Amino acid sequence: MRISEDQLASFSFTGFHFRSLELLREQFSNHHIDFERIIRKIQEFQIAIPSAALGNGSKKKSRTGGEPRDLSEKLEDIGLLQQLTCRTNSVSVYIPQDMPEDFAEVKELANELKLDFDTMNSTSSKDQKEYAKLGSLGNLNKAIRDEAIAHNEEVISIGKKLGSKGLTVWMADGSNYPGQSDFRSTLGWTEESLREIYEFMPSDWRLMLEYKPFEPNCYHTVVPDWGTSSMLAKRLGERAKVLVDLGHHLPKTNIEQIVATLMYQNLLAGFHFNDSKYGDDEHNPGSIKPYQLFLIFCELISGDKDGAQAWDSISWMIDASYNTQDPLVDLIQALETITIAYTKALLVDREKLKECQQSREESRAQEILQRAYLTDVRPLVCEARVRAGGVVEPLEAYRVLMIRNKLVQDRGRKSHPTIF
Amino acid sequence: MRISEDQLASFSFTGFHFRSLELLREQFSNHHIDFERIIRKIQEFQIAIPSAALGNGSKKKSRTGGEPRDLSEKLEDIGLLQQLTCRTNSVSVYIPQDMPEDFAEVKELANELKLDFDTMNSTSSKDQKEYAKLGSLGNLNKAIRDEAIAHNEEVISIGKKLGSKGLTVWMADGSNYPGQSDFRSTLGWTEESLREIYEFMPSDWRLMLEYKPFEPNCYHTVVPDWGTSSMLAKRLGERAKVLVDLGHHLPKTNIEQIVATLMYQNLLAGFHFNDSKYGDDEHNPGSIKPYQLFLIFCELISGDKDGAQAWDSISWMIDASYNTQDPLVDLIQALETITIAYTKALLVDREKLKECQQSREESRAQEILQRAYLTDVRPLVCEARVRAGGVVEPLEAYRVLMIRNKLVQDRGRKSHPTIF
Amino acid sequence: MRISEDQLASFSFTGFHFRSLELLREQFSNHHIDFERIIRKIQEFQIAIPSAALGNGSKKKSRTGGEPRDLSEKLEDIGLLQQLTCRTNSVSVYIPQDMPEDFAEVKELANELKLDFDTMNSTSSKDQKEYAKLGSLGNLNKAIRDEAIAHNEEVISIGKKLGSKGLTVWMADGSNYPGQSDFRSTLGWTEESLREIYEFMPSDWRLMLEYKPFEPNCYHTVVPDWGTSSMLAKRLGERAKVLVDLGHHLPKTNIEQIVATLMYQNLLAGFHFNDSKYGDDEHNPGSIKPYQLFLIFCELISGDKDGAQAWDSISWMIDASYNTQDPLVDLIQALETITIAYTKALLVDREKLKECQQSREESRAQEILQRAYLTDVRPLVCEARVRAGGVVEPLEAYRVLMIRNKLVQDRGRKSHPTIF
Amino acid sequence: MRISEDQLASFSFTGFHFRSLELLREQFSNHHIDFERIIRKIQEFQIAIPSAALGNGSKKKSRTGGEPRDLSEKLEDIGLLQQLTCRTNSVSVYIPQDMPEDFAEVKELANELKLDFDTMNSTSSKDQKEYAKLGSLGNLNKAIRDEAIAHNEEVISIGKKLGSKGLTVWMADGSNYPGQSDFRSTLGWTEESLREIYEFMPSDWRLMLEYKPFEPNCYHTVVPDWGTSSMLAKRLGERAKVLVDLGHHLPKTNIEQIVATLMYQNLLAGFHFNDSKYGDDEHNPGSIKPYQLFLIFCELISGDKDGAQAWDSISWMIDASYNTQDPLVDLIQALETITIAYTKALLVDREKLKECQQSREESRAQEILQRAYLTDVRPLVCEARVRAGGVVEPLEAYRVLMIRNKLVQDRGRKSHPTIF
Repeated sequence: MRISEDQLASFSFTGFHFRSLELLREQFSNHHIDFERIIRKIQEFQIAIPSAALGNGSKKKSRTGGEPRDLSEKLEDIGLLQQLTCRTNSVSVYIPQDMPEDFAEVKELANELKLDFDTMNSTSSKDQKEYAKLGSLGNLNKAIRDEAIAHNEEVISIGKKLGSKGLTVWMADGSNYPGQSDFRSTLGWTEESLREIYEFMPSDWRLMLEYKPFEPNCYHTVVPDWGTSSMLAKRLGERAKVLVDLGHHLPKTNIEQIVATLMYQNLLAGFHFNDSKYGDDEHNPGSIKPYQLFLIFCELISGDKDGAQAWDSISWMIDASYNTQDPLVDLIQALETITIAYTKALLVDREKLKECQQSREESRAQEILQRAYLTDVRPLVCEARVRAGGVVEPLEAYRVLMIRNKLVQDRGRKSHPTIF
Repeated sequence: MRISEDQLASFSFTGFHFRSLELLREQFSNHHIDFERIIRKIQEFQIAIPSAALGNGSKKKSRTGGEPRDLSEKLEDIGLLQQLTCRTNSVSVYIPQDMPEDFAEVKELANELKLDFDTMNSTSSKDQKEYAKLGSLGNLNKAIRDEAIAHNEEVISIGKKLGSKGLTVWMADGSNYPGQSDFRSTLGWTEESLREIYEFMPSDWRLMLEYKPFEPNCYHTVVPDWGTSSMLAKRLGERAKVLVDLGHHLPKTNIEQIVATLMYQNLLAGFHFNDSKYGDDEHNPGSIKPYQLFLIFCELISGDKDGAQAWDSISWMIDASYNTQDPLVDLIQALETITIAYTKALLVDREKLKECQQSREESRAQEILQRAYLTDVRPLVCEARVRAGGVVEPLEAYRVLMIRNKLVQDRGRKSHPTIF
Repeated sequence: MRISEDQLASFSFTGFHFRSLELLREQFSNHHIDFERIIRKIQEFQIAIPSAALGNGSKKKSRTGGEPRDLSEKLEDIGLLQQLTCRTNSVSVYIPQDMPEDFAEVKELANELKLDFDTMNSTSSKDQKEYAKLGSLGNLNKAIRDEAIAHNEEVISIGKKLGSKGLTVWMADGSNYPGQSDFRSTLGWTEESLREIYEFMPSDWRLMLEYKPFEPNCYHTVVPDWGTSSMLAKRLGERAKVLVDLGHHLPKTNIEQIVATLMYQNLLAGFHFNDSKYGDDEHNPGSIKPYQLFLIFCELISGDKDGAQAWDSISWMIDASYNTQDPLVDLIQALETITIAYTKALLVDREKLKECQQSREESRAQEILQRAYLTDVRPLVCEARVRAGGVVEPLEAYRVLMIRNKLVQDRGRKSHPTIF
Repeated sequence: MRISEDQLASFSFTGFHFRSLELLREQFSNHHIDFERIIRKIQEFQIAIPSAALGNGSKKKSRTGGEPRDLSEKLEDIGLLQQLTCRTNSVSVYIPQDMPEDFAEVKELANELKLDFDTMNSTSSKDQKEYAKLGSLGNLNKAIRDEAIAHNEEVISIGKKLGSKGLTVWMADGSNYPGQSDFRSTLGWTEESLREIYEFMPSDWRLMLEYKPFEPNCYHTVVPDWGTSSMLAKRLGERAKVLVDLGHHLPKTNIEQIVATLMYQNLLAGFHFNDSKYGDDEHNPGSIKPYQLFLIFCELISGDKDGAQAWDSISWMIDASYNTQDPLVDLIQALETITIAYTKALLVDREKLKECQQSREESRAQEILQRAYLTDVRPLVCEARVRAGGVVEPLEAYRVLMIRNKLVQDRGRKSHPTIF
């Protein structure tokens, strides 16, 4: 389904919005902030939706009905998100969960919906497979490694047909007990396997290497931290980079510093946005540590401005699915929260911050960050969205238009478990 | 020194403030929010300043000059803070660090400055003393325990003279290696010692028991968590309660839940406000995890409204000192940040939140919290401050009035190390 | 199946065993250690096996065949473990997973195998049920709470028929996002529900309250720590106590101190033995932190000796299931490892340790603990086992007798998924 | 002072020792373990003592008297340790704390005592200096960076005179608040400074880069993890490697895996041995997590055997100082505990372990590690020590010979605070 132009047009700005925006302009009038530039930046910022987030995966405890039954219906869902928010113009496809049946059809649909195919995702933890136990690309059995490599190569081939330009590799490989696995051998096999995949990859593709300290394995994971990920990326070559999943860190990790250190080396591939309190909780981004998300965007903007690594070289994807309700509602919230953090970071007076750093006025540096963080940037985000063609209040529109009801009517009430 | 009425009056509202406030009113007009009530609540909210925060303690690496040389000058500093912010009408005195020399003089000064004496603080970690090593109130040597008890009783006596109504006990007691100390014996001695102090305490006083998982001892601390603290409090009697220091928790602790659980039992004494990334970092409150601070205030308001524990029964104190600059600037920031978190929590639509909880609309519950948290409440905080007699922008006023310079002129440039 | 007397008798001591034992006696001859007493203590130490550990639960990735198909076959498995190890004379039954079909038959079988029925376990996280989402005993919907209470009462009724004397309650109840659930209400409902169960319980039963900081919920758990657990236990009455699951703690928690603090209040119900590196990993006990297990047993022995809480009042149960192989092998390892930790703790020279604590010789206290911990106590454990009727090397015997093969022949190769 | 040959000879083996050793031989007779080779390996294993561990640093709360008053007396202390243990033939000097006054004299003394000069240590946290606040080698002020570089070059020059072959650099540099410091700039300046030092270093020297996640700074540290450390090392050149301090990791870090990953890249410089429960606790090695220490040695032996990185290329140093008693007693304990962990790791049947890994018998792999870990290897360690010329029981000898008393007589009772 699509939302009609009339429906979209039925939501319009109130005077309140204009007064709020005006007040913001006034507030920042003497802070060297170019409001039009910021609004353009927000408009340009597009976050990919993973195909896995739309369906009813294994973790999801309960869901509303009307779930997409195949990749086409998932594209349809993203199309709806894009109509409402103008914040997501691409899908990041998981294989084998969302294997397209008819490529031409899928691509045509994507074209219609003006959606691109972002980075492809392979899998390493198919429960039924032998390689679930002691690994995929790092399995000690060469036959299983070859199978895992072939799977990744197949994903690349599919991605080529779809027009994707990158592959994200996350490996569940690891072990549960000391002695069970040989750290160096496993790492060596993993490197070899990744090299085969890297070399198979078209020259205009990027390989994005994820890391994760634990889960599903609970003693060791082959690529547990950014250090290992970046070692592998550097050994593979320039097109391999490190992907940061916000939920994949040990307690107390300073993630914004990792982002800066990766940019220092021009080694940051992009993000899986989510949030976490205890482990890989897959909370909605910013729902637990919104200030951390803001600080990460401060680093991203700063690294781009200073010429460390260009903003455009970075990929953005949502990776949150601990919802027990309507995934489209969660995704609208996620898109909004990420954009708010970004917008606040855009309001940081970087010149003054640098001055404070140089004069060592730490309290004033704190003030500068707080001034931006405490600002209510929703009018700015809203303005950018509406200028781009989206609606004033996407969640309200989603509910008023009763989109979920219509999806249930179209697709049925029952949940559709994915293959995975 | 005091700021003159003229000086205070020289800072006045801009039209921007009025427009901002008006817009806030409009924004919450259909959310059953009584703005006047909120402004009154903010005005009433007063946070004590610890005498230890104003001087140049052992941890402080460097400081600007003009530091207070005794308790009177510390009162003077708090008086300045109160003139600017109207948010702090009391001091929480540390003994022996800030032992008054002349009680009458000190009390008179406090009267003049309209400052009260909040909870007294004893110490358990005097480096020079024998009991630094294996404990004070839980020391295996009865003579040392008696000395520590006597110290606490002396602090109570001093507090009585000052007009304080409570004693906060934090103990460094613990051990560094397995086997070094007997857990149960140490706990038993601690309980006995606390009972003596409790019984010595006037009947209208409260005993506030702090807890801390580690530091300075690094294997075990006698009162490491709220469970131990509350067990002791209950055994002592109704006037003993549990004090929450935001920096004294293990990684990943859900502190807002602890607050709720203490209120469930009417057992919350109050707070030491600070923030923490790794350990007991004594960061300024809200400088690392501002959303957590907001969630804590949500619990406090909710517990008060539901009749679990009354707001007025709770003590508020700042306990942050990882500043390397001007402590008055840090304290102004701290007072502001805490008030902002409180104000945002006041804006939560609790009726709607309860509805969402009952109808299990978790996404909508999230929205309700976010709506309040994302609001820029600074105009409200500012309005409350100015109505109470404070200035529009305390930090700006502090700088414009060159208060630090004047303090340096009065007191000298040199740092004055405290006894401690 | 049963192992015949002849088979058991076919494994006999070597001279090596006797020489090792003699050397241990010599080593401790001047340490006031009564070897015969220690051997008796080890013999008396019996650890319950949870019925859930024997089958093929949802978490188990792969297993060998021959799995028990019902409670009777699980009893049979425990009977085999007991024949080999003489360390486990009881089963802790999970309902509904291991609902007995014919009580008379099951009890007769248990009698034959000389097995008792230890604490019963109810469940709070049935995936299919509504109360999986926002709780069981703490659910805001009274009807669901009543259902959960009824389930627990049913488990008690079943336990009465089996001859059990206790109920362990663990609740998955909690929430995934701030705002989703009201902390105090949920806690209040939980307390009410537990009170109903407590009152339903026969007067010679004990209620054991487990706690867990996170998982499956990832923002808040209703009973997250020993503090909450013990608050509830005290409010319920003397027959309610706190159960410690070694895997249910925040990072860096000093678990041995919690054990001591619970014994200080005569409030320790017992243990679920396992180990953990990251979360509730359900590692085999002692496989990650064996020294911690030793220190816990030191506290248990010390608390018993000092009269804080009697050894016999404590329940012992294995709760580890992150095996991917033969559960009987894992359980034999677990029983052995726990017994080794206990035996080492029995070798600690408590008199000398107390002296060192009093004279503050911390290095010497460390030496005393290390002397016991570094001792190879396997000959002692083995001696106790064989005197009780077990075999010298249970794992070797298990393999030589090809017990798994025989179980596969009897029961088939296929895994039998439990209801749960 | 020196212990006389007669005194050393007065401690002799008992029959118990020979019987224990014989039993160990018997126990491992069919495990392809060459006992003589193992004893030789233990003999060759030498651990450096940091000059800082012998004196009375700022952290040390109380100490016995007789402390060394200068570097010569510290060498004397290490000489005593070496006479008793034969486990430490070198000193790792900290500058400026232990600046030699007369090089010729110090070298002659070292020659006499058969001690070498291990890696030199510079400092970055001199409290009095300006660069304590925002860094040394990463300070934004070039003049301060130059001063810090000059300090390191001076340390190298001193080391050259002493015959050292390496420099360990640990930097306290970092920040306490978001915004206070620019991550990438600080890292860049640090890299530049290290490059100058690296280039100044003689061609046969090694630069060892330490990392630490927090403390003394509590928001960010310039080199927080092995990833940053190894990035810098690789950029500097082949003579720069990563030093692992066991206390410098985030909660739950798998340190043995980091060791393996560094060896995978031939990038491991060596160790600072200590232990930690909460932060950088500087506990005695193995006093909290002895099994982790064993697993680390398993990786070291395995990496050497597999040709990943040679054992001889790795430096060993004790770095523990949370003692409140006699530092020589602590160091004897530390040397013993490290050697015990190493010896246990030498007993692992690596062939069988590899087989289990290949056949995926994880329970059996666990058994193999446990078999080695549970063995009481003290007779082996003792045999190696005595063959090398040390005493049977160093701690006992230290006490019987009343060495501390004699040191107090020689040097006085008073503590001698170091410069630092």
